[in-house]
Amino acid sequence: MSKVEIVEVGPRDGLQNEAVALSVEQRLELIARLEAAGAQRIETVSFVNPKRVPQMAGAEEISAALPHADGRSRIGLVLNVRGWERCVAAGCDEANVVICATDGFGRANQGTGVEAQMDALAEIVALKAANGGPPISVTISVAFGCPFDGEVSDEQVARIVRAAAGLKVAEIALADTIGVADPWVVRRRTEQAKTLAPDARLRMHFHDTRNTGLANAAASLEAGADVLDASVGGLGGCPFAPAATGNIGTEDLVYMLERGGFETGFDLSALIQTGRWAAGLLGKAAPASSVGRAGGFPA
Amino acid sequence: MSKVEIVEVGPRDGLQNEAVALSVEQRLELIARLEAAGAQRIETVSFVNPKRVPQMAGAEEISAALPHADGRSRIGLVLNVRGWERCVAAGCDEANVVICATDGFGRANQGTGVEAQMDALAEIVALKAANGGPPISVTISVAFGCPFDGEVSDEQVARIVRAAAGLKVAEIALADTIGVADPWVVRRRTEQAKTLAPDARLRMHFHDTRNTGLANAAASLEAGADVLDASVGGLGGCPFAPAATGNIGTEDLVYMLERGGFETGFDLSALIQTGRWAAGLLGKAAPASSVGRAGGFPA
Repeated sequence: MSKVEIVEVGPRDGLQNEAVALSVEQRLELIARLEAAGAQRIETVSFVNPKRVPQMAGAEEISAALPHADGRSRIGLVLNVRGWERCVAAGCDEANVVICATDGFGRANQGTGVEAQMDALAEIVALKAANGGPPISVTISVAFGCPFDGEVSDEQVARIVRAAAGLKVAEIALADTIGVADPWVVRRRTEQAKTLAPDARLRMHFHDTRNTGLANAAASLEAGADVLDASVGGLGGCPFAPAATGNIGTEDLVYMLERGGFETGFDLSALIQTGRWAAGLLGKAAPASSVGRAGGFPA
Repeated sequence: MSKVEIVEVGPRDGLQNEAVALSVEQRLELIARLEAAGAQRIETVSFVNPKRVPQMAGAEEISAALPHADGRSRIGLVLNVRGWERCVAAGCDEANVVICATDGFGRANQGTGVEAQMDALAEIVALKAANGGPPISVTISVAFGCPFDGEVSDEQVARIVRAAAGLKVAEIALADTIGVADPWVVRRRTEQAKTLAPDARLRMHFHDTRNTGLANAAASLEAGADVLDASVGGLGGCPFAPAATGNIGTEDLVYMLERGGFETGFDLSALIQTGRWAAGLLGKAAPASSVGRAGGFPA
């Protein structure tokens, strides 16, 4: 039975896009429940400015409450050199460095264009070589379409993949930040990334904004992706489509993969309970994930 | 560019599972809007007992209001010989005859087991040979899992496919009635059906109950399926999972396919408008389809 690795991103990409900000204690309980449900890699915190993203305040407190543990990786999101320094100081097990595929998204989201972000990545890699630090995963956001610049080409993504591979990062991710990809472009870009960066693991990050998230996950897996991101309860949303849902739900992904004969290491029932509990904290009647609402099968 | 045929099932499988029953006039307007948006094959009516399914009352009235038109097919759902006779008398362009893959679902849904339903299909085919009637499509319901009998095997489905192929029906469909399939079983059963019934067209009918609907649609298409069912606005639901959504949304399917380079013949904007309008008729704030809420891309 083939194993599929899933990174749980609910505590970061999920909560970051929720209107209600959870407390540090609530977020730590969410992380504990997720680890109890089988999550081994979790994006726990984001080293952004808490004035800009108040939902992510307290990254240092959360990291301090999660001492190193075998078989667990707590990942910090990093947007720039300052974020890297905070991530190293906080003792995260991994750093997830974001590079936007387009200047439009980069400027809106991180205040800089693609070139400056690639320079920052090179500086982070140099700092790690000089001073140490956790393994680096690079996430290429809006890799399938941008709310500002529109279509994103294979070559726009390939350029960043090549640069990240040249810097010998441990993992590269293609993120469909606004949920516009289809399984056919996903297959093509998965194959392209595997060809351009054969030594890095390839992680794929899908949003379900237009309901193609699981189709894209299946297509990327078939095309050679190594790791998939998902968010318990489908936590999160899309600032560019206010009525839409966010990341693919971890329950939905685990359900699909386990039904398909893959092993994920997650306990689906515990995951469903965690998604429902988190939805309750956020004042929602039900989680956004489909399996969170319908339950698994067979019952 | 490859063309994918879509059967719009919102007026039948969608509305049948909605709490609010629309009037004959409202249903005719829905059909007219769908045809204006590009639908060429529509399941317009169900020849069930209106006392059992009040949402489907008025099948004869609706059919009478839809005279034959070139390039359009209005399909009637048929559960038994009585339904076939009504479908012929009403002048439908096609009959969609349902056979349940399990005795449990058959008894609960149609009052008879699999054998009796296969006998009824043979009788319907004989009646058509003797007296004429529209082309027959056979839909195998609960072909991927049953709320009463649990798992459904490849062989349970294969038996019915073989029988339908032997009766030389025009089209055979595998229906994931309660939304439990995954892309890998879908691929296997698509290939199996194409092998067992090479002369029939293969239609696939997916529900999005557990969010795997579009992944299953993409997998079946890759494996050789000819036609896909979908419901505008994701109309419908699942009586066995009250909080869940129903058929895959036509907007979601059209979005995914057109982004992937396929041609569907639908106008996505008109479809989104129709889904939103139908949601309004049913008293909902937004359609269940993701693209109905988020819109397409690029805008």
